[in-house]
Amino acid sequence: VPSRDPESLLLAAMAGDRAALGRLISVVERGGGPARHAARLVFPRARQLGRVIGITGAPGAGKSTITDQVVSLIRADGCSVGVLAIDPSSPFSGGALLGDRVRMQRHSTDDGVFIRSMATRGHLGGLALATPEVVRVLAAVGLDVVVIETVGVGQIEVEVASNADTTVVVVNPGWGDAVQANKAGLLEIADVFVVNKADRPGAAQTRQDLAAMLDMSVARGQWRPPIVEATATEGKGMDELWAALGDHYDYLERSAELGARRGRRLRRELAEVLVRQMERDVRALADGRRWEQLSAEVTAGRIDPYEAAELLRAELGSDRAPNAPS
Amino acid sequence: VPSRDPESLLLAAMAGDRAALGRLISVVERGGGPARHAARLVFPRARQLGRVIGITGAPGAGKSTITDQVVSLIRADGCSVGVLAIDPSSPFSGGALLGDRVRMQRHSTDDGVFIRSMATRGHLGGLALATPEVVRVLAAVGLDVVVIETVGVGQIEVEVASNADTTVVVVNPGWGDAVQANKAGLLEIADVFVVNKADRPGAAQTRQDLAAMLDMSVARGQWRPPIVEATATEGKGMDELWAALGDHYDYLERSAELGARRGRRLRRELAEVLVRQMERDVRALADGRRWEQLSAEVTAGRIDPYEAAELLRAELGSDRAPNAPS
Repeated sequence: VPSRDPESLLLAAMAGDRAALGRLISVVERGGGPARHAARLVFPRARQLGRVIGITGAPGAGKSTITDQVVSLIRADGCSVGVLAIDPSSPFSGGALLGDRVRMQRHSTDDGVFIRSMATRGHLGGLALATPEVVRVLAAVGLDVVVIETVGVGQIEVEVASNADTTVVVVNPGWGDAVQANKAGLLEIADVFVVNKADRPGAAQTRQDLAAMLDMSVARGQWRPPIVEATATEGKGMDELWAALGDHYDYLERSAELGARRGRRLRRELAEVLVRQMERDVRALADGRRWEQLSAEVTAGRIDPYEAAELLRAELGSDRAPNAPS
Repeated sequence: VPSRDPESLLLAAMAGDRAALGRLISVVERGGGPARHAARLVFPRARQLGRVIGITGAPGAGKSTITDQVVSLIRADGCSVGVLAIDPSSPFSGGALLGDRVRMQRHSTDDGVFIRSMATRGHLGGLALATPEVVRVLAAVGLDVVVIETVGVGQIEVEVASNADTTVVVVNPGWGDAVQANKAGLLEIADVFVVNKADRPGAAQTRQDLAAMLDMSVARGQWRPPIVEATATEGKGMDELWAALGDHYDYLERSAELGARRGRRLRRELAEVLVRQMERDVRALADGRRWEQLSAEVTAGRIDPYEAAELLRAELGSDRAPNAPS
């Protein structure tokens, strides 16, 4: 029976054991005490975080093909890479994992590539918390680059997609696709645009639409996301995409925006963790004996709801040990 | 300058000073320390809560006309009445107040009627908390019956409307009106239905639609909401409505459901107050110096987000005095 102890799993994963890495990620995804333990071990080891590239867009835009090509380019550059494929559209099927494996078959025998599908199991909020944690796990075990591929629909997905240093937004030619991306909040998080399937009619128009939107939103001196036309299935435009990714990373390092951006991500994560912990506190309260007592006092007319709420909140502090497992 | 001290306002209002009552309600609506003080004074005095009747339905269904007629019936019965008119559709205009006054002109010189428009000022959540508090204020100053008139669209409005012992849902004849009421969640909170404007075509069909939905949802032995056809502008159907209101109140008292229902309302209010207080805690944390310190520790890689969140939560308990003003 393989160990599920976070410490042994991390040591094995750092020594190159991919099965141990997979199990460690499962521990993190499941949450609770072991996940908390894993997080504490991983955090200091993930300080030398490599590049994190996010690839997002509407379903069917060609994100996986582009991810596949980008992985090849990262490998050709001599770097190892971890891929997080997040597919909320098939939360229960497990099919995403198989699909990714088939798609990325040429990487499957490559020790320098680790591919992981994260199922959402209907709990997107959990995913939003697990993603930065799993990114740190991949960095801690020594993978140079992390690629997060995620469907860019809905607020939380966009939030997950923005867990990157460089976010690539993939759109397709066709009337309104740029507008849809804008509505989905993708324009705000894009550092690089890819107009994929550019051999289809309307590519030039889509590029113009994007450029017009950028004209309105990008201030002078800010990074202006380049727009790359591509036909990823044929490898067309991939060199330009690679160059654009490099330019953006250079910009991040030159402008000190890399550290600032990572700092903002960590602060957002802290806020998220805090809210989650307090939600758990409230749930625990609402199930507890003290809640029953005090709400009985209220319905009997002995104390008012505000006083009862304050007494309940005072309870929260008292039985909580500092650094208790989350 | 009239006093704004909650205690003097309450004493004056209990002695029949309507202007003081109005100012006391404004104190409650504004929230903060004085509202907390008012709540503490009012709660024990509101134990002998009289009947609370809610009147809700889509905009234009004729709720205000029915409220007006019900107020007359309550007065004819020898009881005093407080009316809370809640109109989220005109949050900033203040016009609702004038409109109500014109509409209810015949009650405006009646000392036994107190009419109050509550503006939502774009903050429905606040309204959900203020409504039960204001109902208690009206009871505490000795008004026998409280009528809450509210637009029944959206989750929070329905929640506000359900702050009553008996909830009247007003629909109009016309294809699908009953279905719309169902979608809006009004069927679940209805104790009495009024098909108002019953002189228009389709009244019988609407009654049938409602009856069919009740057949599906009301279990044997449960209260089955009666359906009253009315033309409120001509006073038609108002005696039947009055009888239905009486029947329902008798049922509540006979079945001990009155106390149970009021207990559930208080428990819901307690939960709401608790969540609101914790939201305020989180906001205070997010603005505080300790948040800055700890998030700097996190971004510097010295502690992980989970540990920082736990340290922040520990802060919440420490500087909070029991029974501090809310």
